[in-house]
Amino acid sequence: MNRKLMFASDYQEGACPAILRRLEDTNQISFPGYGKDEICTHAKDLIRKACNCPDAEVEFLTGGTQTNATVIDALLCSYQGVLAAESGHVNVHEAGAIEFGGHKVLPLSGTNGKLTAAQIEQYLTDFHNDGNWDHMVMPGMVYISQPTEFGTLYSLEELTEIHRVCRQFRIPLYVDGARLAYALASPDNDISLSDLARLCDVFYIGGTKCGALFGEAVVIPDSSLIPHFFTIIKQHGALLAKGWLLGIQFDELFRDDLYLHIGEPAIRYASRIKKALAENHYQLFMDSPTNQIFFVIDNDKMSVLSEKISFGFGEKYDEHHCVIRFATSWSTREDDVNDLCDLLKSL
Amino acid sequence: MNRKLMFASDYQEGACPAILRRLEDTNQISFPGYGKDEICTHAKDLIRKACNCPDAEVEFLTGGTQTNATVIDALLCSYQGVLAAESGHVNVHEAGAIEFGGHKVLPLSGTNGKLTAAQIEQYLTDFHNDGNWDHMVMPGMVYISQPTEFGTLYSLEELTEIHRVCRQFRIPLYVDGARLAYALASPDNDISLSDLARLCDVFYIGGTKCGALFGEAVVIPDSSLIPHFFTIIKQHGALLAKGWLLGIQFDELFRDDLYLHIGEPAIRYASRIKKALAENHYQLFMDSPTNQIFFVIDNDKMSVLSEKISFGFGEKYDEHHCVIRFATSWSTREDDVNDLCDLLKSL
Amino acid sequence: MNRKLMFASDYQEGACPAILRRLEDTNQISFPGYGKDEICTHAKDLIRKACNCPDAEVEFLTGGTQTNATVIDALLCSYQGVLAAESGHVNVHEAGAIEFGGHKVLPLSGTNGKLTAAQIEQYLTDFHNDGNWDHMVMPGMVYISQPTEFGTLYSLEELTEIHRVCRQFRIPLYVDGARLAYALASPDNDISLSDLARLCDVFYIGGTKCGALFGEAVVIPDSSLIPHFFTIIKQHGALLAKGWLLGIQFDELFRDDLYLHIGEPAIRYASRIKKALAENHYQLFMDSPTNQIFFVIDNDKMSVLSEKISFGFGEKYDEHHCVIRFATSWSTREDDVNDLCDLLKSL
Amino acid sequence: MNRKLMFASDYQEGACPAILRRLEDTNQISFPGYGKDEICTHAKDLIRKACNCPDAEVEFLTGGTQTNATVIDALLCSYQGVLAAESGHVNVHEAGAIEFGGHKVLPLSGTNGKLTAAQIEQYLTDFHNDGNWDHMVMPGMVYISQPTEFGTLYSLEELTEIHRVCRQFRIPLYVDGARLAYALASPDNDISLSDLARLCDVFYIGGTKCGALFGEAVVIPDSSLIPHFFTIIKQHGALLAKGWLLGIQFDELFRDDLYLHIGEPAIRYASRIKKALAENHYQLFMDSPTNQIFFVIDNDKMSVLSEKISFGFGEKYDEHHCVIRFATSWSTREDDVNDLCDLLKSL
Repeated sequence: MNRKLMFASDYQEGACPAILRRLEDTNQISFPGYGKDEICTHAKDLIRKACNCPDAEVEFLTGGTQTNATVIDALLCSYQGVLAAESGHVNVHEAGAIEFGGHKVLPLSGTNGKLTAAQIEQYLTDFHNDGNWDHMVMPGMVYISQPTEFGTLYSLEELTEIHRVCRQFRIPLYVDGARLAYALASPDNDISLSDLARLCDVFYIGGTKCGALFGEAVVIPDSSLIPHFFTIIKQHGALLAKGWLLGIQFDELFRDDLYLHIGEPAIRYASRIKKALAENHYQLFMDSPTNQIFFVIDNDKMSVLSEKISFGFGEKYDEHHCVIRFATSWSTREDDVNDLCDLLKSL
Repeated sequence: MNRKLMFASDYQEGACPAILRRLEDTNQISFPGYGKDEICTHAKDLIRKACNCPDAEVEFLTGGTQTNATVIDALLCSYQGVLAAESGHVNVHEAGAIEFGGHKVLPLSGTNGKLTAAQIEQYLTDFHNDGNWDHMVMPGMVYISQPTEFGTLYSLEELTEIHRVCRQFRIPLYVDGARLAYALASPDNDISLSDLARLCDVFYIGGTKCGALFGEAVVIPDSSLIPHFFTIIKQHGALLAKGWLLGIQFDELFRDDLYLHIGEPAIRYASRIKKALAENHYQLFMDSPTNQIFFVIDNDKMSVLSEKISFGFGEKYDEHHCVIRFATSWSTREDDVNDLCDLLKSL
Repeated sequence: MNRKLMFASDYQEGACPAILRRLEDTNQISFPGYGKDEICTHAKDLIRKACNCPDAEVEFLTGGTQTNATVIDALLCSYQGVLAAESGHVNVHEAGAIEFGGHKVLPLSGTNGKLTAAQIEQYLTDFHNDGNWDHMVMPGMVYISQPTEFGTLYSLEELTEIHRVCRQFRIPLYVDGARLAYALASPDNDISLSDLARLCDVFYIGGTKCGALFGEAVVIPDSSLIPHFFTIIKQHGALLAKGWLLGIQFDELFRDDLYLHIGEPAIRYASRIKKALAENHYQLFMDSPTNQIFFVIDNDKMSVLSEKISFGFGEKYDEHHCVIRFATSWSTREDDVNDLCDLLKSL
Repeated sequence: MNRKLMFASDYQEGACPAILRRLEDTNQISFPGYGKDEICTHAKDLIRKACNCPDAEVEFLTGGTQTNATVIDALLCSYQGVLAAESGHVNVHEAGAIEFGGHKVLPLSGTNGKLTAAQIEQYLTDFHNDGNWDHMVMPGMVYISQPTEFGTLYSLEELTEIHRVCRQFRIPLYVDGARLAYALASPDNDISLSDLARLCDVFYIGGTKCGALFGEAVVIPDSSLIPHFFTIIKQHGALLAKGWLLGIQFDELFRDDLYLHIGEPAIRYASRIKKALAENHYQLFMDSPTNQIFFVIDNDKMSVLSEKISFGFGEKYDEHHCVIRFATSWSTREDDVNDLCDLLKSL
């Protein structure tokens, strides 16, 4: 075993073979630009069908931060902010893209990366009872991710409750699905694409981390929600000239329900790795049923490991331990998982 | 006692008599606009002298939120955020003015409204050690207020330490002095205007809450720090056409050191009220040596009180109690303080 | 004649006597902050009455650039721009305050500072016919000023036509009335406050240049047009803590229709100066019936003049001539006008 | 001839074969994200070599509007604007992306899409002589495109002059090279990549329209010019997770100088089409030596043409004529050019 085992993230390889093949097949065909081509139209129809929302607007963007910034900007009035977990991607890892658009991220302390309907309701109730509310940033929407940044999942019951609170306070609910395929492939998951379309005002179906070269599909079940979303995308520098490149990828990902299954090996391998961690007495940092595994490791062992494995960011746990992340993906190889498990045993 | 006692805030009355008189005296004189008049020049010189910083740039703005938004925007690069206490005015009560300018407020949990040098140092150290720092909002300055939003004070030692950390990490330190006169008038205070000029990169001397009709004087000890600050002020809609109106007010506030003493009655009265609260077994929410008094009160008593006294916002303390605020000011009347103390006894 | 004659602008002196007196009278009264006091309420009612729009929202801001930036931001969606004359204040002299809020000023070539309904209609028609319109900034409102930056006036017929075009394309019409008193006092004017309230979606009544120390009154005839305008004002740093100071000024300006007449001397004096210019063979740069006089002057004469008179900015007319501006105001003194006319004769 | 001839734009087909092949070859290799991979490093070195600027920072972004918005934001202070031709892409076709970042586009009337050094110098001189300059948007950089939006070219002499003026006024010069390959392939061009690196502060080498699926390479010859450009890219949602996809494309485009020649067929075909237009008595709208051809056509003929050819946007020329655009590209087929020429003859 000479080369490093790559478990640092779920966006380390290209695309699933069908996508590459389609790129080849269409390379010489002339398309109109900006997603106004027939492949995009077809891909959008497949997504509408998969989500059971025939009237949805579907738009393709290139990456996650871009999608979050564009959607949040489109949903909020200038004086509103977005409620999110403190650990939410929009609050931590987007270099201020939300604030660049003029909006405050209103952080709520999450549990395992998740918000509860109760805490959102409490925040909104307190806000409207505050005598100074009109001097404060008005909460204008809720942002959650499924799975979360820690790989955890909302249950259908939890999402339904959050949906109810958002309806009650008349603010939209937006779900970041950068890793949605890994939720859909997890046996612990009980939220379908149709549920998302029924319970969210906007959500996006992640491609970049789920088998595509790049690309995220924004779904707006009520297509009248965001007038001129196309122009908003352009204004954010998020409109791909050769839009059909995105159409091709989602057309392949939603052909024969590929997207519903593409995350399955990742989930299977993640389970095996978690089992190996348990057998070798590693403590999981939190229990997550998708493709990301956070666990506690002795600093010395981490040093040894880092020579053989590429893994995700480590934060300090205590003086002598760190938390690190392994991520599996649609392209993880069984051999690498075997090697990883062997290595954990031998440490 | 028919009318309500007004202890809701420190900006409920007009201006100290000298300012009104000066407005009369100058009313028919023709001045050039935008602060390019001789009174402004003179007032700025008085402030430079009082702060012992002869080369400072001094600019007059109209209000606190405006000043914070303009200064913070001027100090930060587009990709930077401002470190502030969670309870900081910029984080809570400016309706997103900082985010409107594109910047994230990076909140640190404060103690009694204050930050410590140690926690700032820790944050900055952790930031630069984080493997993902370049995906995050770079902390580009520190914002503190003296006195804080809870009326507490930084000591000279504490401010010196925060200054040291800012120097070490090469980020500017900005002090919001909306209520600075009340710090300067407090016997507990050991930070002078000269100290502020020596230890801060920018600070402002509050007028609105300290004897003026309106107005805040921004002091930039090193005048080369913010090129084209005048245009930045204009761009923020913060340039008063008749700038001499601000000049007049600060010229009066700094004539014969008035500003150093104008808060003294407020401090004296606040002490008396705190004493009355203690004698009547009220629990102070926190001990603050300036003109704001936060204390815990039974909900029923609060209802009774609210019929006779106008007081500041109450937050819930527990099921049966609230925290409310009394504020004294340069214009508080002794009779009203006496009545208030009697009332507290009689409840 | 030792001191300079001051005809540089219409914001060189304080306020009309009634305002100063009222400041005195109210100086020691305690008011709630942020315009939630009874004087503001009363002043707003006076304005509603004067404008014949009983349901209007009226809000007081401090200055013109601030007001334009706040209103335009409140009216536009994030992807929209504002149509304005190339010479419009928002396009030239606000240091990019509109762009700071994220909006493009879409400049149309004006005639004497004015736009025509026909050119607005043409622009909007062309925009919607352009195959690439969704890659462009959507025109979301029209900005005009009455009087314009050149002192010219829209007629009621012209304003009615612009109103009609705006209705047809469903975009709001906003009128900047920084110098509105001088329009209302001009015999050439046929647009009343009621007309403005009937034909505009938002307009503001200028105080700073029309007898107040500072202050502009924004009128929104349909009060449901801009939800949460108060918070938007706060977010823009445009909310004055001691809001009653603005209330007082507009309460005085609208007591006994003062505002309708306060500009009359300025108009009278401007006529005399124009007559003197004509008699002495100066060429008017454009004919304007309000308080600003733009005329062409030989460079050498301008040098002489500048020693005795303070006048407004000069732009180059040709190699040997400049255009300069005299402005009269509510506070112009007859003696100064006489001296000015003598001086023009003697040059 | 059943299908339409596609001459609407130069971004209608996929990528040159070498790029597709490389995507295949690298598809299963694991790379670190965000452009921190070896292929990006290699591609950047090739570009540095081709531009003869060994110390340049090179960054890859996805599209043109995104690149312009990100670079302009990075170069300007908050109170500055960008000088551009009225017809410049940033002024017309980016849906306000520049204003979204807070900056005004300061439009100058161009000639055939080009600015002259003289007019830039005049603007900058006038600006600094204007008595109100500090109330205006400060011109903070110059934006030009090579070739321009009309396909015209700056000469080396012209670019050198513009460079000189920018140096004199100490503002950066930025060149939008969305179609740079077509400049480099034109016999009329005398500006090399080295010249650009020597005369510009930032420029970008367009991939999307020049043989890549997507991608633009920003070159900053003095790498210290824009600190933290990586974070700025992230903040703008412009950081591609799988950065090596961009690296691969530029690595192929700069292998064996491919980029210098990839536009040659487009230029050859454009010449033939211009010749056919001349032979058939069409009037060129302007003479442009690259891959875009603007010409005047009778409205009726345009209708006929539009059934057989897809062409670029038409603007009205007069009552009976329009201006339309044909664009050739790296992927134009000789057969299609022949058919197009035949068609022009037969009309």
